[in-house]
Amino acid sequence: MSTKLVEAETPIIPLHECRRFIVDCMLAVGTPKSNAETLANILVEADYRGHYSHGMNRIEMYLSEIQNGICNVNAAPEILKETPATAWVEGHNGLGVVVGTFGMEIAIQKAKKVGIGLVVCKGSNHYGIAGMYALQAMKEGLLGLSFTNTSPVVAPTRTKHAALGTNPLSLAAPGLNADSFVLDMATSAVAVGKIEMKNRTKSAIPPQWADLDTGALHPLGGDENNSSYKGYGLALLVEVLCGILGGGAYGPNIRMLGNFDMFADLGHCFIAIDPSCFAPGFEERLSDLMQSLRKMEPISTDKPVLVPGDPEQLHMDAVNKAGGVRYVQDQLDTCRKVAETLKVKPLQYDLH
Amino acid sequence: MSTKLVEAETPIIPLHECRRFIVDCMLAVGTPKSNAETLANILVEADYRGHYSHGMNRIEMYLSEIQNGICNVNAAPEILKETPATAWVEGHNGLGVVVGTFGMEIAIQKAKKVGIGLVVCKGSNHYGIAGMYALQAMKEGLLGLSFTNTSPVVAPTRTKHAALGTNPLSLAAPGLNADSFVLDMATSAVAVGKIEMKNRTKSAIPPQWADLDTGALHPLGGDENNSSYKGYGLALLVEVLCGILGGGAYGPNIRMLGNFDMFADLGHCFIAIDPSCFAPGFEERLSDLMQSLRKMEPISTDKPVLVPGDPEQLHMDAVNKAGGVRYVQDQLDTCRKVAETLKVKPLQYDLH
Repeated sequence: MSTKLVEAETPIIPLHECRRFIVDCMLAVGTPKSNAETLANILVEADYRGHYSHGMNRIEMYLSEIQNGICNVNAAPEILKETPATAWVEGHNGLGVVVGTFGMEIAIQKAKKVGIGLVVCKGSNHYGIAGMYALQAMKEGLLGLSFTNTSPVVAPTRTKHAALGTNPLSLAAPGLNADSFVLDMATSAVAVGKIEMKNRTKSAIPPQWADLDTGALHPLGGDENNSSYKGYGLALLVEVLCGILGGGAYGPNIRMLGNFDMFADLGHCFIAIDPSCFAPGFEERLSDLMQSLRKMEPISTDKPVLVPGDPEQLHMDAVNKAGGVRYVQDQLDTCRKVAETLKVKPLQYDLH
Repeated sequence: MSTKLVEAETPIIPLHECRRFIVDCMLAVGTPKSNAETLANILVEADYRGHYSHGMNRIEMYLSEIQNGICNVNAAPEILKETPATAWVEGHNGLGVVVGTFGMEIAIQKAKKVGIGLVVCKGSNHYGIAGMYALQAMKEGLLGLSFTNTSPVVAPTRTKHAALGTNPLSLAAPGLNADSFVLDMATSAVAVGKIEMKNRTKSAIPPQWADLDTGALHPLGGDENNSSYKGYGLALLVEVLCGILGGGAYGPNIRMLGNFDMFADLGHCFIAIDPSCFAPGFEERLSDLMQSLRKMEPISTDKPVLVPGDPEQLHMDAVNKAGGVRYVQDQLDTCRKVAETLKVKPLQYDLH
């Protein structure tokens, strides 16, 4: 629940420059402009919200997948089967952000007609932060839920070996006066990106995050005595809604990140719900609940009680005030190397 | 994840006798027979599945609520608003099990027509184990999801004071050959019933379950360093789908258990999903995933890797073999007192 920019002696970079850089990199590897912009918007939004693990940190991974021909930047998703309230979507191995944005758009259209839309996608790739698609529904006045499976890096309770993804879930819902509830969480103790960020800053991995023997992440809870079977169960809930319902890869069958020998065939699940089909006053009640929680007596006065989405809002406020985001030096070095390799204009630091 | 019957020197009691006793008690306080049977089936199913906290353990609570006139055993739920895929239901302060069974039945009917049904109820009471309603959908070949809010006994991250319920969630889904996935979990570190069971057996409450100062339960995760904000966020996700969407009581506004000065006005949310609207072969994939997890190398050979629903299946197998369930002596004493007070035939111990 960090509310600060990355603490580093590195320059502030405006968000539009981050987007420009990602678009240029994606165009350089043959991505159609609108798909490049979709990816740039989603990655930079992750950094803006303070989820640095899922923003610029991932640009190398996306580029490698494309350059190795294991992800099709030109693919357009297709509806295979639908009812007034559901759709099953084939991603045709396109960019996860393109499949995801398409999937949630279909869910939104259906929710506006019959109160709920459920869309399950297969044949996709890494889609960034789950919260982006939940926010996509929220911007239309709906509740949005987003789920995805991921590469198997989490050990089920009672084994040291990985078999499930960090399988994140997100719910976003609108409150009054632009207030909002935005839960966006991996069902593991921590997200893989947080391990990557520890590696970027050469920090040790805390033992409650992972089995230090095999490197497998723990489910939320940690160990069996601390109810880790609930985190394990939640990872499976997400997998049932994604890979099992959608018919793509699932659980231990999903390729590991960085393996370019097989398609990812990831699955996503999107749900949009129209609150006007239920009790009037949804936004008022949600804001009332969130305000009552924020006003609770904290254990430590410097750590107020927050609701999901507040840490991200505080981070966005800090970015707005600073005029941009800060990356750790290792990230800037990566960006410079990427620019050289792809012969695109390097990320500019002194534009604000 | 206990797989044994209660270890006590108490007699085995057949399930039909447990049901008979509960029906008689409920009839004695004026409950219509079909509603009494619905409650008996759901409570005894909880004991059968090994969730002793939510079975016979709760009979006193239900009877007290009815005798204090704070729950209407004659009420029939009513649909206030609906679309082909959604319904908003008023429980009219009826028994939670009656409102819940009705709500999931509507969700099932809608899922069979348009692939998904979402039903949100208000004006309800304690509905027993969340899993019963998920199983209700699973028995129809569907995926079932069930959520409920509960009395505020869980402290949000960063405060010692309770403001949210244990807000359980459940997903049940069918596998091959009667195999199944049944996740049924409180979003707190443990369920309130587990605290009650510790009290019945005069055992100490582990510090990772609750704040020993205020008695408030911790969210799943425990403390902030162990990602408790995820458990807290999940409790809120459930509340958004129940009290906030349905317009009943929510969060800190819900009455405490045992307070007979106000109606519970609990909210439930039910979702049924028809897997045939998505990729063919759902049951095969689910069983394949579950089997691969069960076959994983365990840390300790006497503790095999399980999937959600396995501990309950093992318990049901043990009950079937023994010919019934066993209750702790304190529970038997309670049942005897209840029988005397209501002048119903006591729970019979020697019927097998």
